[in-house]
Amino acid sequence: MSVPFVVQARCGEARAGLLQTNHGSVETPVFMPVGTQATVKSLASGDLEALGAQIVLANTYHLAMRPGAGLVRDMGGLHAFMAWPRAILTDSGGYQVFSHEGRRRIDDDGVTFHSHVDGSLQRLTPESAMAIQADLGSDIAMAFDECPASDASGEVLRQAMERTTRWAQRCLATTPAPGQLRFGIVQGGADLGLRTGHMAEIAEMSFDGVALGGLSVGEPPETMHAVVREIGPRMPEARPRYLMGVGTPRDLLVAITSGIDMFDCVMPTRAARNGRLFVHGGHINIANAVHCTDALPIEEGCPCEACRRYSRAYLAHLYRVKEILYYRLATLHNLQHYLSLVRGARQAIVEGRLAAYAAQIAAAT
Amino acid sequence: MSVPFVVQARCGEARAGLLQTNHGSVETPVFMPVGTQATVKSLASGDLEALGAQIVLANTYHLAMRPGAGLVRDMGGLHAFMAWPRAILTDSGGYQVFSHEGRRRIDDDGVTFHSHVDGSLQRLTPESAMAIQADLGSDIAMAFDECPASDASGEVLRQAMERTTRWAQRCLATTPAPGQLRFGIVQGGADLGLRTGHMAEIAEMSFDGVALGGLSVGEPPETMHAVVREIGPRMPEARPRYLMGVGTPRDLLVAITSGIDMFDCVMPTRAARNGRLFVHGGHINIANAVHCTDALPIEEGCPCEACRRYSRAYLAHLYRVKEILYYRLATLHNLQHYLSLVRGARQAIVEGRLAAYAAQIAAAT
Repeated sequence: MSVPFVVQARCGEARAGLLQTNHGSVETPVFMPVGTQATVKSLASGDLEALGAQIVLANTYHLAMRPGAGLVRDMGGLHAFMAWPRAILTDSGGYQVFSHEGRRRIDDDGVTFHSHVDGSLQRLTPESAMAIQADLGSDIAMAFDECPASDASGEVLRQAMERTTRWAQRCLATTPAPGQLRFGIVQGGADLGLRTGHMAEIAEMSFDGVALGGLSVGEPPETMHAVVREIGPRMPEARPRYLMGVGTPRDLLVAITSGIDMFDCVMPTRAARNGRLFVHGGHINIANAVHCTDALPIEEGCPCEACRRYSRAYLAHLYRVKEILYYRLATLHNLQHYLSLVRGARQAIVEGRLAAYAAQIAAAT
Repeated sequence: MSVPFVVQARCGEARAGLLQTNHGSVETPVFMPVGTQATVKSLASGDLEALGAQIVLANTYHLAMRPGAGLVRDMGGLHAFMAWPRAILTDSGGYQVFSHEGRRRIDDDGVTFHSHVDGSLQRLTPESAMAIQADLGSDIAMAFDECPASDASGEVLRQAMERTTRWAQRCLATTPAPGQLRFGIVQGGADLGLRTGHMAEIAEMSFDGVALGGLSVGEPPETMHAVVREIGPRMPEARPRYLMGVGTPRDLLVAITSGIDMFDCVMPTRAARNGRLFVHGGHINIANAVHCTDALPIEEGCPCEACRRYSRAYLAHLYRVKEILYYRLATLHNLQHYLSLVRGARQAIVEGRLAAYAAQIAAAT
């Protein structure tokens, strides 16, 4: 197999790489903003281009429910539909479906669940999850996995791993969209032995990349960090390594230092909508009364539209009166923060000073 | 008195003018997008600049409630607060307060009412309404008037006119912000005799512009058009003429043809949020199922971001799943439509072909 990925520089276990996709190259490490319903909430595709995002994530489950994968296919695929010319990764829908605790039934063939939109009975299998992603036409499709809860027993973890492996084989047996890459997912919870064993199984398959799933699902950050520090460096060298659903700025630096290349997380966008705005050294909560009369921008020197043009006082006003504009400005800022953080880490890897970069960020935090 | 307004061209009763303000010149006829809470809902000030808006309206009542006029003053005034470098007109708060039917008490000195935010008892007088507008630092402040309901009796209309005249004198006795223009408001309902009489009273005062208030408050469009056709041409020649709270594209053309120079209305922005998107020939409702698979833009050839980049199908999806991005794109489009319509009318006046322009728009509608 030939994976369109090259590692261009190393710094300790960390790597700076380049992943070629059907829609442009992606410089790794990379943070992927989450565009669940074919839009990163509150932003237009032009906003994401201006922020320098090279790849976004979209959710198979949500798009299959609304507007439907067939409609997206008929409209020319997800890139045309959301007018986004750069790369898209789609998750498999597994995580969303397994989050439907009590409303879904798993069997060896797939998962039956009720739609969150209209309660209708729906079913996802490895084959249908891949077919939907082929219809969407994403650049990277994720295998359909079983993602157990963070407090699952060893036996449950083991069963999920075994099923995920069988499903991974079935996913690879399907026909992808032309040029579509496919990533496998490693489960195993926080058990290093299980993780190592499952990684070996997934790494043997002809996936174009390997992801760690089932982390950041409720376990303490230290637990997740321990897994990432141990497993990250031993993931396949020649393929992109993706840590799913992670995380805080600190989580990202721990993972980058451990050799992870790709991330996605709703944190910057969801936190923005809830008033939490990231700054070097932590974050501010725009709901705090002190910001109502603060003429400073969220962060001085930040190049985002919110910081270039508006004061914290104005944002605090918009937030309090629930004006739509607040959500866009706050999201622009938090994504700028995340994308800059990861771009800075990439540059530090290239220049052989990642430890100093991470220490500087950690000291501020 | 010297009013910073010149009529540059005429076409029948219609005028193309230029109004100088503290924050740039305004080419009339002009449509003013409504930015109630110091933001045109869903848009950033940069979006409004890109649309070519030369002046926006902000609401004294809403801003006095939240964040408070003193806070806006302390933050450098409304232009600095909302980062809008062009002109701002503020209403007087009268219309909002009088809309609080059953929750307000009018006396000869002012109006007592309950805040819509926290129910607290508030009071507006001619003096306080002007003081708030001076604090906000708008380029044009509106006199504090009494705006009766559309079905008010002649006696109620007469009382409101008399009170509005007394209050207008008190408004003019206050000190404006430096360079702030002040417009008087003509009441009189749909009674042409009352309107004519009240206009004469207001026209005698040293206001920088004259507005028609108390229209488009529930009366049939034909009734409003009759008033505008009769009164518009007889409003003071040398000062800008402003028709408050109007209206549909057709209303605007009737009024421009009758010599009106300025308009504001929530219609384009509110209709956008409700799924009604203006196109030449009328409007489409994006909620209609037919648009879910429509690959065309809202309107071909429209230069707005929504039409340049996205399909109706995508907008229909965003609308159905209530994504924040929908509101911005829809608002951009409807404001583009309104601003283009009025700019087109201005150009037609300059070129002496307004009747043909209006007929062409009317034929399409």
